[in-house]
Amino acid sequence: MSSAWLLPEHIADVLPAEARRLEDLRRTLLEMARSYGFELVMPPLLEHLESLLSGTGRALDLRTFKLVDQLSGRSLGIRADATPQVARIDAHLLNRQGVTRLCYCGPVLHTRPQSAQSTREPLQLGAEIYGHAGLEADLEVQDLALDGLRAAGLQKLVLDLADARIVRGVLAGLAVDATQLTEVVAALAAKDNATLRRLSAGFPADTREALLALPGLYGDASVLDAARRALPARPVITAALDDLASLARHVGRAHPDVQVGFDLADMGGYAYYSGARFAVYAPGAADALLRGGRYDEVGAVFGRNRPAVGFSTDLKLLAAVAAPDSRRTAIRAPWGEDPALRGAVRRLREQGETVVCILPGHGHEGEEFDCDRELIAVDGHWVLRTL
Amino acid sequence: MSSAWLLPEHIADVLPAEARRLEDLRRTLLEMARSYGFELVMPPLLEHLESLLSGTGRALDLRTFKLVDQLSGRSLGIRADATPQVARIDAHLLNRQGVTRLCYCGPVLHTRPQSAQSTREPLQLGAEIYGHAGLEADLEVQDLALDGLRAAGLQKLVLDLADARIVRGVLAGLAVDATQLTEVVAALAAKDNATLRRLSAGFPADTREALLALPGLYGDASVLDAARRALPARPVITAALDDLASLARHVGRAHPDVQVGFDLADMGGYAYYSGARFAVYAPGAADALLRGGRYDEVGAVFGRNRPAVGFSTDLKLLAAVAAPDSRRTAIRAPWGEDPALRGAVRRLREQGETVVCILPGHGHEGEEFDCDRELIAVDGHWVLRTL
Repeated sequence: MSSAWLLPEHIADVLPAEARRLEDLRRTLLEMARSYGFELVMPPLLEHLESLLSGTGRALDLRTFKLVDQLSGRSLGIRADATPQVARIDAHLLNRQGVTRLCYCGPVLHTRPQSAQSTREPLQLGAEIYGHAGLEADLEVQDLALDGLRAAGLQKLVLDLADARIVRGVLAGLAVDATQLTEVVAALAAKDNATLRRLSAGFPADTREALLALPGLYGDASVLDAARRALPARPVITAALDDLASLARHVGRAHPDVQVGFDLADMGGYAYYSGARFAVYAPGAADALLRGGRYDEVGAVFGRNRPAVGFSTDLKLLAAVAAPDSRRTAIRAPWGEDPALRGAVRRLREQGETVVCILPGHGHEGEEFDCDRELIAVDGHWVLRTL
Repeated sequence: MSSAWLLPEHIADVLPAEARRLEDLRRTLLEMARSYGFELVMPPLLEHLESLLSGTGRALDLRTFKLVDQLSGRSLGIRADATPQVARIDAHLLNRQGVTRLCYCGPVLHTRPQSAQSTREPLQLGAEIYGHAGLEADLEVQDLALDGLRAAGLQKLVLDLADARIVRGVLAGLAVDATQLTEVVAALAAKDNATLRRLSAGFPADTREALLALPGLYGDASVLDAARRALPARPVITAALDDLASLARHVGRAHPDVQVGFDLADMGGYAYYSGARFAVYAPGAADALLRGGRYDEVGAVFGRNRPAVGFSTDLKLLAAVAAPDSRRTAIRAPWGEDPALRGAVRRLREQGETVVCILPGHGHEGEEFDCDRELIAVDGHWVLRTL
């Protein structure tokens, strides 16, 4: 095989069995969002760079492919994350006063893969609620995320809660530049106390102690009590811990099958989160399957600082852990122009069956459909026979 | 509104009502393809440039956005057309001996719009049959195209037939370079006889007469008879005219509601067509809604010159002419943690209803869903009331 026909690294064709699974996941999750009243939008693959990247941070910038527009000479970017696009739609195009629920599903492209196993073309699906600052909106997107994953056949889900205000509250009042902050966040995510110790060497003693305590604040509900003892009693931290306790109570009641945990050092994902956050894990997946939370500031650059909470997921990741569907059955039929045959084929297709007409001189091939029945003529009638 | 938040020219957000219509069209057409036994594949947005453009001609090259891969330093292209990608999948990944039916749906990007009204981000959906050279495969993709458009609510369809072998047959044996050929094809498409006259000034008399006759070979079945008189009786031209007559007979029988016409000068679309071609028109659309045909040579650059026939369409074009669905109805419910309320909401959603929980302090907004019922508590039971 010539190397010209090899695909770029971390880019792959999706072949029939997996493609159908992705399409089914897309429908299941978008239907679940529709049943909650989320309206579907489709932001474009391509935008002006300023519009795509304003206020989103350096990680997203580095991950975005850049192009020059032949029509205008301006710099364009291929979206690496649809969340800021949907905030722009809420802020500018819909511009409603009250609550807006939006969902979307489409490919995004990354210049570099997130990890050694990651694709550079995730199929991102997400849902967002704009215009409500209360925890009810956080609860609704968590309900939708958990209901959607369950409908997709995922079981033994684990919901980890975190809050962007905790790390910010710990570092509040400190002169920390963006580079230092990125390093601290990375060390927290890696639970790398040695690096944290080095980075916090010049910090005040109470800030330093709190920072070094964060990686240990990981586990069940007892984490919240431990956090109240280990972290400074600043209002923003207390509010965050109270919110996390409320969210955990609700999920415990509404989703008794889901295990709830806390990971107060978790700052994974993009930098736009501003409040309570969550990540959903399932057996068989190394990383989170779905991440969400509150990002009240994401619309600010579009001139409309609305409360916002939502989640997003990569359907390719979900497809890799969701139980594969059984192969779809199909009916084999001869090719012919006989109106009775054509009528029989049409009726079966209208009933939802897959009918493969065998072209002259060929048999049936294919990995997606399994022909378990055959349409044959008996006494001048077209009837089904089991194979 | 700052110009930073304006989208690039010929790029647009798709807002709720239109987005849902696109999603419904996607499902309708992919389900129709599934019922015929077409397997779904998802080629990537991004490929090495050689792989994406080999053998596809200059029009596609000019329309393709180019990038440099940070991981390899190689040139990448964003697909402007998925058809050659699907041929690559058939040739290399599946590599089956017999008939393979594949379908796909996803966005493509164009550096320049096709016309003043065109989007640069069509949502391309298509279907292809590989491995069968007979007309039965042409007929099957035409059946699928017409059944799909009808299921999408389009009526009064017009199917125009053409054949790439006719223009090639007329020009056969002539020393025509690629630039000249492009000009001839453009003049034929524009039915611009003045330019054709100029371009063919040095051609042999019989070739020139045939070429100048082509733009007039447009209309109903009588066109085929006129073509047999006006065009040289070369085997390739006779074979093409015989095939077109067979195709028209079949469509007339199988789709009596579809008007069949001929346009023997039509060479619109990309340069990879090699045999019979078709375009479907509907009232209200200026250009063809769907184009297809035989392109037996498209897989040759991938080392596997299999017979191939298929079609593709832009769902955004279809959505603009398909009858809009009526607005979806929804149910309004109060927000609350009462298990009876939550149970009632869940059951309604499982029945396929959209239930919007009104978050505290807000009303329902949104253009996609129309709340025509309300969930209220009467004597301790949650019941629906018409609004």
